[in-house]
Amino acid sequence: MQNRAIIENVTPNIEGGKYYIKRTPNETIEITAHIFGDGHDEVNARILYKSAKQKKWQTSHLYHIANDEWIGNIAFEYEGMYSFTIEAWIDHALDWLIGIRKKILANVDVKVELKIGKEHLSKIMKLAGAKDKVLIKSYIHKIDDVNEYEVAIKAMNDIVLERIIKQYQLAEFSTKHDVEQLIKVENKKATFSTWYEFFTRSASKEIGKHGTFKDCEKVLPFVADLGFDVLYFPPIHPIGNNFRKGKNNSTTAKPGEPGSPWAIGSPDGGHKAINKELGTLADFKMLVSKAKSLNIDIAMDIAFQASQDHPYVKEHPEWFKWRPDGTVQYAENPPKKYQDVLPFNFESNDWKGLWNELLSVVMYWIEQGVTIFRVDNPHTKPFVFWEWLIKEVNKKYNNIFFLSEAFTRPKIMAKLAKIGFTQSYSYFTWRVTKSEIIGYMNELTQSELREYFRPNFWPNTPDILPFHLHNKGYAASAMRFVLAATLSSNYGMYGPVFDLLETESFNGKEEYNNSEKYEIRNWDWTTMTPMRKLIKLMNAIRNKYEAFQTTYNIEFVDNDNPMLLSFIKHANDKSKSLFIVINLDDNFKQSGHTKFDAEKFAKKAGIVKVNDLLNGESYDWKTDWNYVELDPQILPAHIFEIL
Amino acid sequence: MQNRAIIENVTPNIEGGKYYIKRTPNETIEITAHIFGDGHDEVNARILYKSAKQKKWQTSHLYHIANDEWIGNIAFEYEGMYSFTIEAWIDHALDWLIGIRKKILANVDVKVELKIGKEHLSKIMKLAGAKDKVLIKSYIHKIDDVNEYEVAIKAMNDIVLERIIKQYQLAEFSTKHDVEQLIKVENKKATFSTWYEFFTRSASKEIGKHGTFKDCEKVLPFVADLGFDVLYFPPIHPIGNNFRKGKNNSTTAKPGEPGSPWAIGSPDGGHKAINKELGTLADFKMLVSKAKSLNIDIAMDIAFQASQDHPYVKEHPEWFKWRPDGTVQYAENPPKKYQDVLPFNFESNDWKGLWNELLSVVMYWIEQGVTIFRVDNPHTKPFVFWEWLIKEVNKKYNNIFFLSEAFTRPKIMAKLAKIGFTQSYSYFTWRVTKSEIIGYMNELTQSELREYFRPNFWPNTPDILPFHLHNKGYAASAMRFVLAATLSSNYGMYGPVFDLLETESFNGKEEYNNSEKYEIRNWDWTTMTPMRKLIKLMNAIRNKYEAFQTTYNIEFVDNDNPMLLSFIKHANDKSKSLFIVINLDDNFKQSGHTKFDAEKFAKKAGIVKVNDLLNGESYDWKTDWNYVELDPQILPAHIFEIL
Repeated sequence: MQNRAIIENVTPNIEGGKYYIKRTPNETIEITAHIFGDGHDEVNARILYKSAKQKKWQTSHLYHIANDEWIGNIAFEYEGMYSFTIEAWIDHALDWLIGIRKKILANVDVKVELKIGKEHLSKIMKLAGAKDKVLIKSYIHKIDDVNEYEVAIKAMNDIVLERIIKQYQLAEFSTKHDVEQLIKVENKKATFSTWYEFFTRSASKEIGKHGTFKDCEKVLPFVADLGFDVLYFPPIHPIGNNFRKGKNNSTTAKPGEPGSPWAIGSPDGGHKAINKELGTLADFKMLVSKAKSLNIDIAMDIAFQASQDHPYVKEHPEWFKWRPDGTVQYAENPPKKYQDVLPFNFESNDWKGLWNELLSVVMYWIEQGVTIFRVDNPHTKPFVFWEWLIKEVNKKYNNIFFLSEAFTRPKIMAKLAKIGFTQSYSYFTWRVTKSEIIGYMNELTQSELREYFRPNFWPNTPDILPFHLHNKGYAASAMRFVLAATLSSNYGMYGPVFDLLETESFNGKEEYNNSEKYEIRNWDWTTMTPMRKLIKLMNAIRNKYEAFQTTYNIEFVDNDNPMLLSFIKHANDKSKSLFIVINLDDNFKQSGHTKFDAEKFAKKAGIVKVNDLLNGESYDWKTDWNYVELDPQILPAHIFEIL
Repeated sequence: MQNRAIIENVTPNIEGGKYYIKRTPNETIEITAHIFGDGHDEVNARILYKSAKQKKWQTSHLYHIANDEWIGNIAFEYEGMYSFTIEAWIDHALDWLIGIRKKILANVDVKVELKIGKEHLSKIMKLAGAKDKVLIKSYIHKIDDVNEYEVAIKAMNDIVLERIIKQYQLAEFSTKHDVEQLIKVENKKATFSTWYEFFTRSASKEIGKHGTFKDCEKVLPFVADLGFDVLYFPPIHPIGNNFRKGKNNSTTAKPGEPGSPWAIGSPDGGHKAINKELGTLADFKMLVSKAKSLNIDIAMDIAFQASQDHPYVKEHPEWFKWRPDGTVQYAENPPKKYQDVLPFNFESNDWKGLWNELLSVVMYWIEQGVTIFRVDNPHTKPFVFWEWLIKEVNKKYNNIFFLSEAFTRPKIMAKLAKIGFTQSYSYFTWRVTKSEIIGYMNELTQSELREYFRPNFWPNTPDILPFHLHNKGYAASAMRFVLAATLSSNYGMYGPVFDLLETESFNGKEEYNNSEKYEIRNWDWTTMTPMRKLIKLMNAIRNKYEAFQTTYNIEFVDNDNPMLLSFIKHANDKSKSLFIVINLDDNFKQSGHTKFDAEKFAKKAGIVKVNDLLNGESYDWKTDWNYVELDPQILPAHIFEIL
């Protein structure tokens, strides 16, 4: 117990290191800690890190800021699991150097101190490289030469000596922090992805006809042309017949109505089966493969629930709850009943059997080529289950992504991200005003959420037509789209409904009228409307400009109009950072002055040319404040590169 | 893994439960946690707690506030070690009751739900007391009676049924939080103590004569009369001869100068010996015993360092650092040298031997009757050492108190408190302005420090005559005294210097001129000066009014004068809470209006009589704002009881 350094309050620390922090290659991890020792001796500290495959720690610098608070950074070039911790110690060599310099300055005789220094240098010699060994020897020589005291004390102020003493850390009697925080480095797509959702059954060009995977293949070039790289389908499994829902969520389906795809399971099969109206497994695999050739990943829906005629109900009655009258327990929100959906009973005595079966569903589809899962309502199944399932998948496969579709309370959404979901739906859908947007972005990027919660911004979903889009046109949708695509590196839309500007609500609720959830729709998959042109252009900009490929590089900027949102998206190469202004008013033209600091873009203060990537127009801007004006009918935003 | 509840972010949590939180009997612990489950079922949770001697947990309520945040309280009647954790579960019985009530309200048939309720009630029956068993049976009877459906559904709204379901917690498939946070409940004196410090060698009435323990005995009634219950002496051990310090810290002592008591050790002995000029061990034990009879604990100084002629230097050279020229390493702050003091080398290969010897010093004095130690500069010895030492002492003895004399950086002071020091010197000595005082009090009482850091407020010490007391008189000292004695339940003063208003500094530094640290002084131990009268009265008030016996019950109150500090000290019986106003200006009379809310003192809004405990004057105060005026030459503060 000769160790004297104390390490406290290390961040990031996700529940004591229990959950990993998430990064993609070269994304920085900022590490802070409180570090101090007893007495007045110099303390030193460093970051220790390694990949799961390595045994030996590598080191990285930590710097003392103030008040015993230290800071450092690490980043990883390659995907994989890593961990870091912190090591601290009393740095006697550095302490000696600082002390002898002070004494020399005060004209104190330091003959004995020089000899002490020799002891430190001899130890450091063992760690040093060949060139530095020569240098160290020369210092020892000067110390040893009793006739050259003046030379020796002059050498004590050498910057080279200081460099050597700081570089080779003896770290004697060091303290190692007792938490090893895990880090998962995943494929860049975990942080930068562009999602499009449509219902496979609406892919046919023929009105009223049930679409097929073959029809979907024909839509792929359209999706690719718009610039999306994830295509997400609602469930493709057989749909229950009992208690099937009809048009607009009616509790009785008319003959021929297709039902909700989330009412999974019929005599034809369950979660591993395919709705035969869509085609065969072979068709599906062909679709997945053709999508991949267009750089599109097919994301599959995972909805762990069953219709009343799912084969599980008969084969595994123990996985459901049964009522005293012998009927099966359906989903409820008293007094509302959802008889088309049976939740699994995770408190079942056969919870193990249930867990294994559900894992096998995910594994099955991975084996068919699926790498991305959009998980339906994960917050209605136990957290311990998801934690286990994702861990099991990760044991066998890398870069399988799970998007958490949980629109629920903040701590629950955060927990799902902690236990392993790759990305998460977010509150963006309902963040409308400037202060709401800035507050939410700060929460996502400046709080602990930054370490593990990767938001995915959606202006709409099949379940949500938010009030602010009701009965609106191009301007509102364009604004919400540009917000999603610029604020978040992961975003998505439930299309053609969205890009064709369908905004009619069902009875004034936040739901779509004539929702595709309950019926087959037909869509124009070809016309390049203004909205689609905007989407295509925006996605091209996102792909070209690194600044849009992470969410955590945002800096909001002052302006003088509450309806205008100004922000910088920083790039590592500052000259490629972008300046964005969005009009939050979808009714009226808004203008105002926005602050601008050229130096943040590696430009000299003065006048620079800014070029709008959306409409190609250029302006001369000065460091300070600049006038902007946006007409929502024409242009929802400026996205300026600084020339 | 059928458990579905999640428990996160439990507070208090001192570094993952590693360090205990500190309380005295009946001092409340407020516990908070984030708790939630999957799905929409009702979640329930409770505090589990037990003493170190118990195996079985006892339970206490937790309440949901908002946003999945829960809160509860526990307190312990008896001293000892305890721990707490939290348990949470899906409360199916409560969920059922809430559900069936909603369905009944919506006129849904609940015959099946009644049968489900019977299942829950049958389980609860097993936990219930005899009387409640009868009640539960009556509900089951109503459910079973198929002819009385209306009676049964009416009974579902009974408050008694709700009470039963909430009272007997099935806690099936519960989650237990993985941290068991330790709690140490100590004697009330840990939180409420009143310290007086003097130099034993200055206790003689004869001018220039070295005081003795016998002389100290004669001073005891004076100290008791002023109302102090801890009497702290600087070290009483033999003082080094080599490099002895002279008057005013001169590096050479003249013949006959006594030296600094902190330069411990001479050929006469070390840390277990007594300076023979003070008397014998028997004299010391007699003094301790006579003090106890006056309800005064003698606090002993523990300064783990040695003079150059301490026996350890020869007997255990391995416990010191040696320089290449064969001399021993003394304390330094380059280029300053402190040759009269040798620090121990805790990095010694024989650190074990050193630790054991130092522990034996503490144990030795405990065996002589000492129960309180004021530890000199604990931050210059390793934290791991103190943690171990205090733990070892606690294995054998209860209620041995350690006061940490660390005036250093905030994280270091906090760490010493965490690892076991009972009380800590504080920054109060330098907190002067209203905002400094309020800010510091909030830090001490509202941050995590409240759990383990018990501040002790000192207006002065032998090492510190703060600038704001330089060359001041009664008014300044009285104000600083009243601040210490009202803001903090633990306070102390270095007397007679303080109570006799000696405020001459040495060369304008924050040090006393002619400091007792280096010479023998003589004091008037009898005259009841105005300052001493104030001290006696204030200590009597502190002893009488519970509101002054804890530090954590403070609430600052608005007033309209930055030189006036207003606050409430809350008592459990609100009518005994006190209202304090202190004039922070020691030069001028200050007046203003201070806010006052009679309801906080369990009085009806309107006019109440307030009675100043310091001068006996009464005023009629109204709820709202009231005029106050304080002349520092006459009265430093109002301490109002509300009649």
